[in-house]
Amino acid sequence: MSGLTSATTAAKRLLLGRPFRSDRLGSTLLPKRIALPVFSSDAMSSVAYAPQEIFLVLSLAGISAYSFAPWVGLAVAVVMVVVVASYRQNVHAYPSGGGDYEVATANLGANAGLTVGAALLVDYVLTVAVSVTAAAENIGSAVPFVHDHKLLFCLLGIALVAAVNLRGVRESGFLMAIPTYAFILGVLTMLIWGFVQIFLMGRDLQAGTAQYELVAEQSDLTTLAMVFLVARSFTSGCAALTGVEAISNGVPAFEKPKSRNAATTLLMLGGFSITLLLGIIVLGERLSAKYVMDPQSELAGLPEGYQQKSILAQLAETVFAGFPLGFYVIAVVTALILLLAANTAFNGFPVLGSVLAQDRYLPRQLHTRGDRLAFSNGIVFLALVAMGFVIAFDAEVTQLIQLYIVGVFVAFTLSQTGMVRHWTRLLRTETDPDARGRMVRSRIVNAVGMVMTGTVLVVVLITKFTAGAWIAVLVMVIMFVLMKMVHRHYTAIESELEAAAAEDDGVLPSRTHSIVLVSSLLIPTLRALRYARATRPDTLEAVTVNVDDRATRILVARWEESDISIPLKVIASPYRDVTRPVITYVRRIRATAPRDVVTVFIPEYVVGHWWEHILHNQSALRLKTRLLFEPGVMVTSVPWQLDSSNRAAKRSEVEYIAPGDTRRGFGVTPPRDEP
Amino acid sequence: MSGLTSATTAAKRLLLGRPFRSDRLGSTLLPKRIALPVFSSDAMSSVAYAPQEIFLVLSLAGISAYSFAPWVGLAVAVVMVVVVASYRQNVHAYPSGGGDYEVATANLGANAGLTVGAALLVDYVLTVAVSVTAAAENIGSAVPFVHDHKLLFCLLGIALVAAVNLRGVRESGFLMAIPTYAFILGVLTMLIWGFVQIFLMGRDLQAGTAQYELVAEQSDLTTLAMVFLVARSFTSGCAALTGVEAISNGVPAFEKPKSRNAATTLLMLGGFSITLLLGIIVLGERLSAKYVMDPQSELAGLPEGYQQKSILAQLAETVFAGFPLGFYVIAVVTALILLLAANTAFNGFPVLGSVLAQDRYLPRQLHTRGDRLAFSNGIVFLALVAMGFVIAFDAEVTQLIQLYIVGVFVAFTLSQTGMVRHWTRLLRTETDPDARGRMVRSRIVNAVGMVMTGTVLVVVLITKFTAGAWIAVLVMVIMFVLMKMVHRHYTAIESELEAAAAEDDGVLPSRTHSIVLVSSLLIPTLRALRYARATRPDTLEAVTVNVDDRATRILVARWEESDISIPLKVIASPYRDVTRPVITYVRRIRATAPRDVVTVFIPEYVVGHWWEHILHNQSALRLKTRLLFEPGVMVTSVPWQLDSSNRAAKRSEVEYIAPGDTRRGFGVTPPRDEP
Repeated sequence: MSGLTSATTAAKRLLLGRPFRSDRLGSTLLPKRIALPVFSSDAMSSVAYAPQEIFLVLSLAGISAYSFAPWVGLAVAVVMVVVVASYRQNVHAYPSGGGDYEVATANLGANAGLTVGAALLVDYVLTVAVSVTAAAENIGSAVPFVHDHKLLFCLLGIALVAAVNLRGVRESGFLMAIPTYAFILGVLTMLIWGFVQIFLMGRDLQAGTAQYELVAEQSDLTTLAMVFLVARSFTSGCAALTGVEAISNGVPAFEKPKSRNAATTLLMLGGFSITLLLGIIVLGERLSAKYVMDPQSELAGLPEGYQQKSILAQLAETVFAGFPLGFYVIAVVTALILLLAANTAFNGFPVLGSVLAQDRYLPRQLHTRGDRLAFSNGIVFLALVAMGFVIAFDAEVTQLIQLYIVGVFVAFTLSQTGMVRHWTRLLRTETDPDARGRMVRSRIVNAVGMVMTGTVLVVVLITKFTAGAWIAVLVMVIMFVLMKMVHRHYTAIESELEAAAAEDDGVLPSRTHSIVLVSSLLIPTLRALRYARATRPDTLEAVTVNVDDRATRILVARWEESDISIPLKVIASPYRDVTRPVITYVRRIRATAPRDVVTVFIPEYVVGHWWEHILHNQSALRLKTRLLFEPGVMVTSVPWQLDSSNRAAKRSEVEYIAPGDTRRGFGVTPPRDEP
Repeated sequence: MSGLTSATTAAKRLLLGRPFRSDRLGSTLLPKRIALPVFSSDAMSSVAYAPQEIFLVLSLAGISAYSFAPWVGLAVAVVMVVVVASYRQNVHAYPSGGGDYEVATANLGANAGLTVGAALLVDYVLTVAVSVTAAAENIGSAVPFVHDHKLLFCLLGIALVAAVNLRGVRESGFLMAIPTYAFILGVLTMLIWGFVQIFLMGRDLQAGTAQYELVAEQSDLTTLAMVFLVARSFTSGCAALTGVEAISNGVPAFEKPKSRNAATTLLMLGGFSITLLLGIIVLGERLSAKYVMDPQSELAGLPEGYQQKSILAQLAETVFAGFPLGFYVIAVVTALILLLAANTAFNGFPVLGSVLAQDRYLPRQLHTRGDRLAFSNGIVFLALVAMGFVIAFDAEVTQLIQLYIVGVFVAFTLSQTGMVRHWTRLLRTETDPDARGRMVRSRIVNAVGMVMTGTVLVVVLITKFTAGAWIAVLVMVIMFVLMKMVHRHYTAIESELEAAAAEDDGVLPSRTHSIVLVSSLLIPTLRALRYARATRPDTLEAVTVNVDDRATRILVARWEESDISIPLKVIASPYRDVTRPVITYVRRIRATAPRDVVTVFIPEYVVGHWWEHILHNQSALRLKTRLLFEPGVMVTSVPWQLDSSNRAAKRSEVEYIAPGDTRRGFGVTPPRDEP
């Protein structure tokens, strides 16, 4: 095992260099102005791709359909308002930060909770995939080279964010604030300056794509088809809502009054998102900017080697015409906030994992939050799966969007349903009229939220299922089943142990027999003998397995010369095997005295490099492993630290802080010694 | 670790099913009639390809050159005689079975020995590659389908033999005898019947290839070039000698008088090989059979889709004309003995490995012969590398032959040189005239052997180096360097330990502090506490790490209700980390009492399936690993066997017998208990 660990850590170090030594997080409670950017980068960043997805879908029906865009945008805005309003209730009712998972579990039972869990896990993966892809696309709009190697840059982007999180770098709220505010500020400036030019200065701004004729793929659609199309563009636009729930998971990290502050921050988030979303859509339509799936077939009159730019890039280009810097700034800040959004997924994923582990839906060690390895595995896993999706869909945002928002809206719907139940339950007992009034109001809000998000979910499934949503659903189902199985396993073990406990008599073992495994008279063995002696067992003997007659004879001779008072037993091993003879020997002792306990002392080398493990302890390790299967036997490793081990020990001294701790408000517990 | 082992064994079981339960090998000493086939399949099988390689090389110079074939064959026969004669000396002088490696080491020093070791390791790999390829070729001569998918069948063949060895199937000398005798008998019959037809019945037999005109690639060669060509065909023919040394490694497996019997067997082997070799060459030439590198370019007048058959197949076809069964029988027995030869390599490889491990040139655990895992790794390794070679050279015997015999002749030469030294050394002290006489004679024989094999080696290097021998040489050098490094590492460790032993005062630790790691009050923990108590330490306390305030509070409460007299300490863990706080705590104890020893008891679940390891003990395992780095600390695992573990235990009960034990005469030691 240590071989493995040290090997992997070695590999990671090679890859990532030393992790930063991170200071105690005692003082990381977040004021609103920091909390907003920390928790909203995910939601905010989605306005970078949501609007253009609306345009893209509509363009299938030709330019006329573009007139629907503002209305679709409005619809999305309405949903946003409702969702924000609903989650303001959540943060008041569940300030613990358990988020949708907790709400669903508490009010709708384990399976609902687990469904939310599975949905969110998938959602995190897709957040990474979509955000990084969108980032690459926006940078690509400014830098053709990136556009031509989009897939590569996406993979690099994911690797980069993963690496940052593997290093367990301390999250600085301040640093995270910069890109978010920069993005908001940048886009706002662009919008305002754009509208100023149009309405006050009466300029006739036209996007670069204005000149190209839009070739309707499906002209003269039936009304039904048209409705379906608009519905699809709406669901694509709903991508703007992803990440709104983030704040409800982050309540513990807020300054007091936590819930109030969180609620206010939610409001700010909603306000900004809606403003940006609508602003971009309206301006885009005003500049008759076009964004289509496949320019070559859908746009007429294209020049040679035309390369489609993201809507944001098109707007920036037009608005800041003659001021290219503005254009580049928009591209950069957009990419930054998108990467930040991916980063939040990397933070949230292991955190959710530890919550699920706490409820035994995932391996238990994921729960111990400081456990670097557990977290690292989670991060690597997330990165690989996300890369898989990016590759599978050739780094096309439009493709990934199809899978994306299913998970989010499953979570939304279940959590809102849960909230309704929550209020209903409270109302049963609550008597104080004011309180009842508030609860009723809250329940109405959440009910509206439930209905709204539920409807959207249905629409999403209808309009996107065949387009790819089915994949997301499938993955969720698989995750759900797996976690169920893990849970079942743990429960089975528990009852097995209870049964054992029931028939346990609680009597102390009457005597202890100690056996020291010997293969040489080197100092590690001698010390093992001494230590074994120090534990004052009832019987103590040294045992060697005769895998090599000559060597054994020499050992026995030396032993007799030496001043060791402990008798040396030689066990025959016709097949030159170490394990089985020892097992047989131990069993014989156990057979003669079943109430006693046998302790086998195994001298072991502790080495510093993974490859040294190939050269040492292999037989000892396997023997240990095998001995553990024998009832009534304890296995004691007596380590001998070789010089090379000291360095390794030093390496592992570095303190580690798990990603996502800031947003969980962890690390605030002052360190204490005894309770 | 156990996770790993069980995982791999599980995988292997999936792959191979249960290994046979093999009985004690006490009675496996081999009579000559069995020893011959067991040890000579490798050498004998090489007459299946050696002759045709002679023809192949000569054919480059046109049909006229074929007249050299018998003389080349004769030259090879002479070398064979000399080598056999020399090795008869070896088996008398070194009956222990150490073989060339032992001889070289004993007389020429470690580096010479290691060179032989490296050479033989490479030789084993190539034996597998060449034999299996030749087998596929011979079957292919009878079954076109095999011919068309040669590479595939080669890989399957290697996989099959590897699988058989992985199962640790007991070697039945009797079963091994069948193919060898069948081959000898079959080919002899073919030769005799062939010559009878020609000389007694005066039939004019002509091989199928007789009608085709041989197009000389290099006509009118200079004498020098011609000599070079003949030399090359000679070295190719020397492939017939590979495997002769096998018997000298097998002396311990012979019935008494071991050396005498081994020597006689060597003689028989030599006799048969030479007869078959010359017989095939002469008959082949008589039937003007042709075998060339590339039929399309070197043979004129070929029909469409002509497919070249091996020389053996050609002869069989002609001799048994009108009796196709004979033809097929020859093909089958040839393939069988070749597979058997590959199998011997699979036996020899781990055996040599264990000898090298004993001298610390390879990881030590390879030495414990019963160690299934070690052997399995060796077998898998050999199979993979052999497959690599087969793929790299597209399953062309002619290509592989170029790399093949370098290793063997390096071993031959060094071992014969060693023997000369050996006799010289003995002669210095020996006084008895008769003995001296024998020694002088032996020395002459070995000297001739040394010169002869040395010369062949030089010729091989000259004629084959650029053709591929360089690869074999390169691999040998790499192996040599690696093994040197391993050796250096072990020596370094040894001196490090001696230094430590020197400054060791040998005083017993004054007191023992026991710590039981606790995370619950489940039965495994309770039992761990009881066992720890039973070892009567000076101080005993239970320790829990507070990774989850709620859980910890509950545990503490339960603890106080319970009747456990041992105090429970709670250690804070601001980062929800288990390992570091425990380390710090242990260090504090050590700091206050440096002369004492600390024992940490860790309750552990023992599970049956590899995947269960993902769900259990992960934190415990890492903590253990990390604790071992602390001086003066012992780590005691208190296993709790879950039901699922019993099945796993059963599985591992199956006894295992290492491949190659028969030929090493292992397992003859009667099992005893105490010395």
